[in-house]
Amino acid sequence: MADSEFTRTAPVSGFPEWLPEVRMVELRWLDRIREKFESYGFAPIETPAAETLSALLKKGETSQEVYTLHRLQDDSGGEAKLGLHFDLTVPFARYVAQHLNDLTFPFKRYQIQKVWRGERPQEGRFREFTQCDIDVINPDHVPLHFDAEVLRIASEVLTELEIGQFVLRVNNRKVLEGFYRGLGVPDPVAVIRVMDKLDKLAAEQIERMLVDQLGLTDGQAKSCLRLAELRGGDAPSVLRAVRDLGVNDELLDEGLEELAYVLDALRDLPPGVVEADLSIARGLDYYTGTVYEGTFTEFPKYGSICSGGRYADLAGAFTRRSLPGVGVSIGLTRIFAKLLTEGRLPVGPKCPTQVLVVVPGQDTQAATAVAAVLRGRGINTEVFHQTAKLAKQLRYAIGKGIPYVWFPPFHDDAQHEVKALATEEQVPADPTVWLP
Amino acid sequence: MADSEFTRTAPVSGFPEWLPEVRMVELRWLDRIREKFESYGFAPIETPAAETLSALLKKGETSQEVYTLHRLQDDSGGEAKLGLHFDLTVPFARYVAQHLNDLTFPFKRYQIQKVWRGERPQEGRFREFTQCDIDVINPDHVPLHFDAEVLRIASEVLTELEIGQFVLRVNNRKVLEGFYRGLGVPDPVAVIRVMDKLDKLAAEQIERMLVDQLGLTDGQAKSCLRLAELRGGDAPSVLRAVRDLGVNDELLDEGLEELAYVLDALRDLPPGVVEADLSIARGLDYYTGTVYEGTFTEFPKYGSICSGGRYADLAGAFTRRSLPGVGVSIGLTRIFAKLLTEGRLPVGPKCPTQVLVVVPGQDTQAATAVAAVLRGRGINTEVFHQTAKLAKQLRYAIGKGIPYVWFPPFHDDAQHEVKALATEEQVPADPTVWLP
Repeated sequence: MADSEFTRTAPVSGFPEWLPEVRMVELRWLDRIREKFESYGFAPIETPAAETLSALLKKGETSQEVYTLHRLQDDSGGEAKLGLHFDLTVPFARYVAQHLNDLTFPFKRYQIQKVWRGERPQEGRFREFTQCDIDVINPDHVPLHFDAEVLRIASEVLTELEIGQFVLRVNNRKVLEGFYRGLGVPDPVAVIRVMDKLDKLAAEQIERMLVDQLGLTDGQAKSCLRLAELRGGDAPSVLRAVRDLGVNDELLDEGLEELAYVLDALRDLPPGVVEADLSIARGLDYYTGTVYEGTFTEFPKYGSICSGGRYADLAGAFTRRSLPGVGVSIGLTRIFAKLLTEGRLPVGPKCPTQVLVVVPGQDTQAATAVAAVLRGRGINTEVFHQTAKLAKQLRYAIGKGIPYVWFPPFHDDAQHEVKALATEEQVPADPTVWLP
Repeated sequence: MADSEFTRTAPVSGFPEWLPEVRMVELRWLDRIREKFESYGFAPIETPAAETLSALLKKGETSQEVYTLHRLQDDSGGEAKLGLHFDLTVPFARYVAQHLNDLTFPFKRYQIQKVWRGERPQEGRFREFTQCDIDVINPDHVPLHFDAEVLRIASEVLTELEIGQFVLRVNNRKVLEGFYRGLGVPDPVAVIRVMDKLDKLAAEQIERMLVDQLGLTDGQAKSCLRLAELRGGDAPSVLRAVRDLGVNDELLDEGLEELAYVLDALRDLPPGVVEADLSIARGLDYYTGTVYEGTFTEFPKYGSICSGGRYADLAGAFTRRSLPGVGVSIGLTRIFAKLLTEGRLPVGPKCPTQVLVVVPGQDTQAATAVAAVLRGRGINTEVFHQTAKLAKQLRYAIGKGIPYVWFPPFHDDAQHEVKALATEEQVPADPTVWLP
């Protein structure tokens, strides 16, 4: 394998792939996520990997990350240029605009797919990765009920996947915008954009930027930073702390009411899982109300593992119909790869087989028959693939991590036996009732 | 929507996407296929959408179909060129070569993924489509057992998906090559390539090509065509018919023995599902023994819905290790899209919700509580998202095809009731034991 002719079997950087035993765990994760989404009535959609480039770039912000597609021997010229989707929001917007008349609203959809970004790979950043998105959209108005529901679902998903301790931070853009406006700041949205850098820059740098670049007074800048320090899971305490900063504004009131609603609706969740964090801004102008951001408690520097929020219009680039919504996106590959790297993923056997039926002699008929019975009862079963010494057949089971070996009867009077390889215990068994 | 500004919401030709109610059916198909593959002990792998172009083109035959990837603003230059995989065989070969030391052999893998081909779309031919592949590979030797097993699995999958009548035709390249050699033909492989066109050209044209282009005598050409007419599910009859053509050759004997083994191992399947068809050639030199090809009985012109066979070396382009194998690929999108077009797909409700819990008044607490109980018991449950007139809540359930509506107690003495929308029957129910 050192031969240079074969070096191209190396993995492509940023495109992760797993051994079968790891892929089996990932598939179980995907199953659980899907089950959870469906348990709340979210319907599945899947969109093509490729969209027209013009659709992908309607928002215009991420052009450098897009992979475009070209045919190796393109002789047509006239076709629309295509690119791979870099998130699931743009394809969802295009999908909704296109199928508007065939959807029933409020439309609750989930979408679990690969996305591609031509970024430089680094820890936690991939060129191909799986996102798990849920969104609720409805023409003109989406009840606040869903702001709490999508966050509850994210919390339940992350808990069931046993990813370790995590925190889902929630805030509301109206609180920020209203607070800054109430302070008398000239351009509240510009302040949000600066405050969004708080996770990367020191508080003093932020303060200086607010004063020097945006013309805030020292007092205004300090108030902005004091707001960003507030957090906690108890709605009344958080609201009191904001009020204590002495700013009054209608939009602020509205935002605080919404924030309190979400916290209150989720107060039955385990303590610490969901908390208000008044520093969360989510820089994009896209979001207009509730915003979320989830992180590993243990690996705070690893960055966001899930995020989302409420937006005023999903598909403005594609249809005149106003479609507000709220959604959350779980970064499956980011989470999975981190736990794998940290040795926190309980990786099991190399194949899904539960029972290996050994072939005792030349005749495979008895083995094939019992395998069919077990399979028919939902037990994953292999028949050993040739006549071979028993020791070789057992070695195969051990090598693949198959937990049980089945011995069909050698002759008419003999009975079936099954051996658990973990305990070495071998007992008679009836294939029509036996359970692993 | 007639505005030209919005016309780019049209679907990209050749990239199919479905409404949620159709995607739900497709997901059930994918689940069943995966369950079937796993029930026989096949392990899942997933490879990246992209491979290096040099890996993709090692076989060199399909260069015009490959989509290459480019970053919209590429400033690096030095990176390996990437392309989307156009089948799952090349990525599997690269994967096996790369992870050779981490796999346990015989390696039985399944892989269910999208593939991309830059072809001109037409009925049954897509630019993005899902393939479901199983293969068994083993260094140096793969038991014939698996030639029968993978075909049995394909047959069971297609039966369980209820795709209508289908036939899986099986042949053996050794039979063809041995027969032509036994006839005294100078280049048997060239004859296979011509015979492979039998589904597109008339028998007379094939005969003329054999004589004019390959220099066969009229008698040799007629014998080739007579062999190609033979078919049937009963191994002894098929063998007798081949023998009656009077050709003797060692390789022919070996091929007939293998073909008889496969037919014999599958004789318990329903009649007509698997049959020998001596015209099946599968043109590529890749295949060396058993070959398969499946078609709809009802739509014979639609072409192959599943195919595969035995090969002498999977990964010769990537490793010196000899890895023979046998596998089959099911064309999920081809089958699914055809049944959808023909109106043969039983499409159900627009969402996975089984129960809608109505919100009787301002208080949502009772509704939320009963929803949690039902969900905890594995029943997909939505709570209506706002306070609204009962008629509106019922309309939502009917519009989405939700089969049951749950009425939580209005006051302390009242009891839970559930209504089946199909029958309009409303009865008292206990959320801890009720089943849909």
